[in-house]
Amino acid sequence: MTVSATEAPLDVVADFPAIPDGWAYLDTAATAQKPRAVIDAIARGYDTTYATVHRGVYQRSADMTLAYEAARGTVARFVGAKPDEIVFVRGATEGINLVANSWAANQLKAGDRILLSQLEHHSNIVPWQMVAERVGAAIDVVPLTDDHRIDLDAMAAMIRPEHKLVALAHVSNVLGSVLDVERACTIAHSVGAHILIDGCQAVARLPVDVAALGCDFYVFSGHKLYGPTGIGVLWARGELLDAMPPYQGGGSMIDRVSFERTTYAPAPTRFEAGTPHIVGALGLAAAVDYVTGIGLSRIHAHETALVADARAALSRINSLRLFGPADSAGIVSFALQGVHPHDIGTILDEHRVAIRAGHHCAQPLMGVLGVEATARASFGVYNGAADIDALVAGMERVVRIFG
Amino acid sequence: MTVSATEAPLDVVADFPAIPDGWAYLDTAATAQKPRAVIDAIARGYDTTYATVHRGVYQRSADMTLAYEAARGTVARFVGAKPDEIVFVRGATEGINLVANSWAANQLKAGDRILLSQLEHHSNIVPWQMVAERVGAAIDVVPLTDDHRIDLDAMAAMIRPEHKLVALAHVSNVLGSVLDVERACTIAHSVGAHILIDGCQAVARLPVDVAALGCDFYVFSGHKLYGPTGIGVLWARGELLDAMPPYQGGGSMIDRVSFERTTYAPAPTRFEAGTPHIVGALGLAAAVDYVTGIGLSRIHAHETALVADARAALSRINSLRLFGPADSAGIVSFALQGVHPHDIGTILDEHRVAIRAGHHCAQPLMGVLGVEATARASFGVYNGAADIDALVAGMERVVRIFG
Repeated sequence: MTVSATEAPLDVVADFPAIPDGWAYLDTAATAQKPRAVIDAIARGYDTTYATVHRGVYQRSADMTLAYEAARGTVARFVGAKPDEIVFVRGATEGINLVANSWAANQLKAGDRILLSQLEHHSNIVPWQMVAERVGAAIDVVPLTDDHRIDLDAMAAMIRPEHKLVALAHVSNVLGSVLDVERACTIAHSVGAHILIDGCQAVARLPVDVAALGCDFYVFSGHKLYGPTGIGVLWARGELLDAMPPYQGGGSMIDRVSFERTTYAPAPTRFEAGTPHIVGALGLAAAVDYVTGIGLSRIHAHETALVADARAALSRINSLRLFGPADSAGIVSFALQGVHPHDIGTILDEHRVAIRAGHHCAQPLMGVLGVEATARASFGVYNGAADIDALVAGMERVVRIFG
Repeated sequence: MTVSATEAPLDVVADFPAIPDGWAYLDTAATAQKPRAVIDAIARGYDTTYATVHRGVYQRSADMTLAYEAARGTVARFVGAKPDEIVFVRGATEGINLVANSWAANQLKAGDRILLSQLEHHSNIVPWQMVAERVGAAIDVVPLTDDHRIDLDAMAAMIRPEHKLVALAHVSNVLGSVLDVERACTIAHSVGAHILIDGCQAVARLPVDVAALGCDFYVFSGHKLYGPTGIGVLWARGELLDAMPPYQGGGSMIDRVSFERTTYAPAPTRFEAGTPHIVGALGLAAAVDYVTGIGLSRIHAHETALVADARAALSRINSLRLFGPADSAGIVSFALQGVHPHDIGTILDEHRVAIRAGHHCAQPLMGVLGVEATARASFGVYNGAADIDALVAGMERVVRIFG
């Protein structure tokens, strides 16, 4: 049983300069606000230690190279990986596109199949549609259980040797449903399929250890983990990464270039063409240090408690429909009969409550839920009981206006 | 005739907090240091106005969307383009890879040819090699003149209707040679070829107007333009961009997603899958405002004067070989007989002079120059006569040590 958010507050909102008093920021699943430690690390990267990496013969550049590679090490420890298995990408979207192009486009052939689920984010659908069209593969879709989890029993029943790749969200960005990744990996591997896990909503909400999970690829974005925009992470098992051809060509990713023949650097360098988002990596490492300092288990308990409190309070509102399972990780989607979610969002905004309303880049899931859109409140380390009170008070006003 | 740098200093080094007194930072061609205005814009993006774009129904997100799109407008005006023709990418490398994959991979077929030059950066070679291998195209290479410019007479003689794409650097990152882009475009278009210009070293050094130049694609990186890391720009003529299929799949770039059929958003949104580098765009706009405030013509005159002074001083050193044309834009490459450029770099570093030594991601050019590597001093708005004095004093010490 979780304690309520009022009993175990994290009480870190003062670390977040962009959250003014009385503003209930409930859109962390879209992007997290940044703690001062991250903003300072970014500013320091530009105003004190700035230089390029991997190239300079002067001390400042050598130091920056060490800092950049140390950031890779920090991220690797954070998810239980080896540093050489961590590729810095622009975000989870690019990580998935990289795997689709460098791995899937070379491994899959006509007649092969890809297995997704009904609750995937567009970023974990469209890249697979693009590669499937390119190689002549087909896509199958795992349905959801009645309480809106990926139905692993159904997955076990439908998976076949033609499935070469499975790609699933660790935590649904709409519903907060947490996948049993270990079981999903066992099912995928039972037919020899590889499995990619979209960890965007997971890494900021619960402890993640890729080795323990047993997956083959794991991706996440920095900006949803309290880090900077423009940086994300692809983790892949070393032997997979070693065997994958490059995704983008350019500087740094080469061994030797001639017009006759170009050879490539080993992973992860092979996948980081061009000058990287150097300061983004430093900021991401600071974000990892920040959440690690609080502790992911504490964050998970905190958000689970907020979800329980929010669901309990919202369920008392007439005609309000809650989506997702009761033990959702940090995310509550809901709809109010006869009221468009955008109107909910607009009225809540007048009450200084920021939620997201829309399809949340998960249009196929909207169809499954039988709605065009939902209202979504998502929590972060800075939220507390007062934010839920503000959300509920705002929703009561919505009901009065439209009731 | 240019005035010497001593006569017309820009005198803006105080704007750059990461350049301590007495440090001669001469590696701007690798990456530029950041003015306080850029660092402040980045910090403000995170600590005051932070929110996601294109999605939120609350005011902060609507404001951030306006700011992000205003940044696109700022960049568009900077290069004489329309905002809808500006795609934010991670950097020039990604911009070239995007064109190689979305345009060239679909337009070129077996037997077609791509025309590059001997002085291209790896980022303007490797993506074309990758796409050429994929479609069965071949690559031809325009030689250099004796003073190390792309030889446009040779280009005019060798171009043929089989050449579907020409890709050339506006300014060489090793030599500073400035391309006559207008003439190169005329030659390319004379056989119906499209032409991409790598503007990485140009946009920070001279005024650029893509409409006047007549090219089809133009790319540059933010971090070399005094902006943040992790952001860059692809400009393409509107009708080309409109006709190109998406590069990466994901959120934001779609019109409608279903497992049966996905349709895509119009350009430039179609090419910006996933949450963009929001704060990177704000920082890049601040960088554009900064250089525009000084004036690109003034910057160009300033750097041309620095190059003239540096070349004059360095040419007095025995056994020192200067590369590139006399009117190089902001970049001076050189070698000292019998001394490895890395040793030059290390000794200069002890003198608080930061240069780059190596192949500068242009290994084919090193072969043309007959060296394994060069030492390269490159200038920015913050440099002045004192930096050249420090460089020359350092080089005299190198000569004493190795002489």
